[in-house]
Amino acid sequence: MTRTVFVNGEYCDESDATISIFDRGFLFADAVYEVTAVIGGGLVDWGHHLKRLKRSLKELQIEISVSDEELFLIHKKLIDSNQLMEGLIYLQISRGVADRDFFFPKPEVQSSLVLFTQKKSIINNPSVKNGIKIISLPDNRWGRCDIKTVQLLAASMNKMSALSLGKDDAWMVKGGFVTEGTSNNAYIITKNNTLVTRKKSTSILAGVTRQVLLELTNHLEIKVEERPFSIEEVKIAKEAFSSSATSLLVPVVEIDSCSIGDGKPGKMTKLLREKYLMKVQKSLL
Amino acid sequence: MTRTVFVNGEYCDESDATISIFDRGFLFADAVYEVTAVIGGGLVDWGHHLKRLKRSLKELQIEISVSDEELFLIHKKLIDSNQLMEGLIYLQISRGVADRDFFFPKPEVQSSLVLFTQKKSIINNPSVKNGIKIISLPDNRWGRCDIKTVQLLAASMNKMSALSLGKDDAWMVKGGFVTEGTSNNAYIITKNNTLVTRKKSTSILAGVTRQVLLELTNHLEIKVEERPFSIEEVKIAKEAFSSSATSLLVPVVEIDSCSIGDGKPGKMTKLLREKYLMKVQKSLL
Repeated sequence: MTRTVFVNGEYCDESDATISIFDRGFLFADAVYEVTAVIGGGLVDWGHHLKRLKRSLKELQIEISVSDEELFLIHKKLIDSNQLMEGLIYLQISRGVADRDFFFPKPEVQSSLVLFTQKKSIINNPSVKNGIKIISLPDNRWGRCDIKTVQLLAASMNKMSALSLGKDDAWMVKGGFVTEGTSNNAYIITKNNTLVTRKKSTSILAGVTRQVLLELTNHLEIKVEERPFSIEEVKIAKEAFSSSATSLLVPVVEIDSCSIGDGKPGKMTKLLREKYLMKVQKSLL
Repeated sequence: MTRTVFVNGEYCDESDATISIFDRGFLFADAVYEVTAVIGGGLVDWGHHLKRLKRSLKELQIEISVSDEELFLIHKKLIDSNQLMEGLIYLQISRGVADRDFFFPKPEVQSSLVLFTQKKSIINNPSVKNGIKIISLPDNRWGRCDIKTVQLLAASMNKMSALSLGKDDAWMVKGGFVTEGTSNNAYIITKNNTLVTRKKSTSILAGVTRQVLLELTNHLEIKVEERPFSIEEVKIAKEAFSSSATSLLVPVVEIDSCSIGDGKPGKMTKLLREKYLMKVQKSLL
């Protein structure tokens, strides 16, 4: 079975899903995206994703002609068409089709809208049981990582560097401190049970899972410090984990060949993941 | 009349020219490109562009199945089909089509190849007569600007910032020194007639025009210093200019609202542009 996808107003088979070679998403990486998790056929944290999408569009001055309600309904229809119980919906909006020019095209050029689904095991994510092993790499990305653009080549290359060393992912380092993972936010839990993660800035993406998680720690009265941390601090941490919309929380058990804690997924990480899953399952759309 | 373009082995009308929404050029900016100038129906500096293209591909570990000769023949056929006398040919190669994943797809996935033409006035480029006015902006781009990838959003945004101030372009600054323009290399000529331009590194693209120009200055016995320079140095320079494949050399007469030299295109810039044009016209392919 092939997927039904959405491209510029039409639902079509994935094999027919094309965009113009003049789309600025293709020629200039002039596009933003969102990935929304699907659990039990329902959307996870949809409101947060929509809000971030609109911020990204605003930062790039990209206009869209579909309403929030329409975007939501396209998501729901794709879930139905593809009978998606667990996985994700990917949404991309680019500035649209115009003859190639570094200057943006005239405002009347319509932005492009593309959505597709992917199946993924979220609740029983195999990485959660044993945790993942990561390496540290220089953060080579551009200066506006707070905008969720498709300029993902550096992240993709870093992921491949990790793979070539037999590891699962990379945490990126800028000015001596961890920014984030290749497609996730980064956290440690210190020996005195404080959750540490970097503050929101142009150097990291404001993860939706990060935001919901921090609200949760507030309820659970877990001490949180939003500040930079170094690789050395990761190595002596009690626990470490990453968060993203479709992995939720994933324990990190090794960095640069050095075990973190006892080298097994940490207790607080497990607890937070369970609490997170309970919370989102109550608010699926 | 619409253009004939080339997409993955087929020549087609530009209105039919599409790629899959799953092309990694669209989803990850995982693609490289080249722009080769066309003068009098002939290719300018083709050998240099081919060499740089292959370096970019190697850096990203992208394989192609077309030979150098085939690439050249596609260029020539597009020039013929579109009766292109003056302008450019744009070539883009992406890693190909695969379900979205930060990990690169299996090596058997074929890369995508796209080419199209654009008309442009090169010899009588209107910017040359009066020179252009530029602003300086922080260089926000990623750490591998030596690879000619389509991660061009920062450059495009900077160009728009210049336009919003009524200027023509922006020179980007990193660590207190100019890196390059949004789509060109940057040069000054000091009061003692020394041509200064930044040395090749991961912070700039090794411009083909830059390389040919430096060979030319050697013949002309013009003193050259390949070193960083600041915006302050630009302001007190005798002349300034930018170089790119399709603008060749363009005089820069103002930066951050400060006139450079007498505010008119400089003599050495004009001379170098003429010599450059003479040189390439003898070696068109």
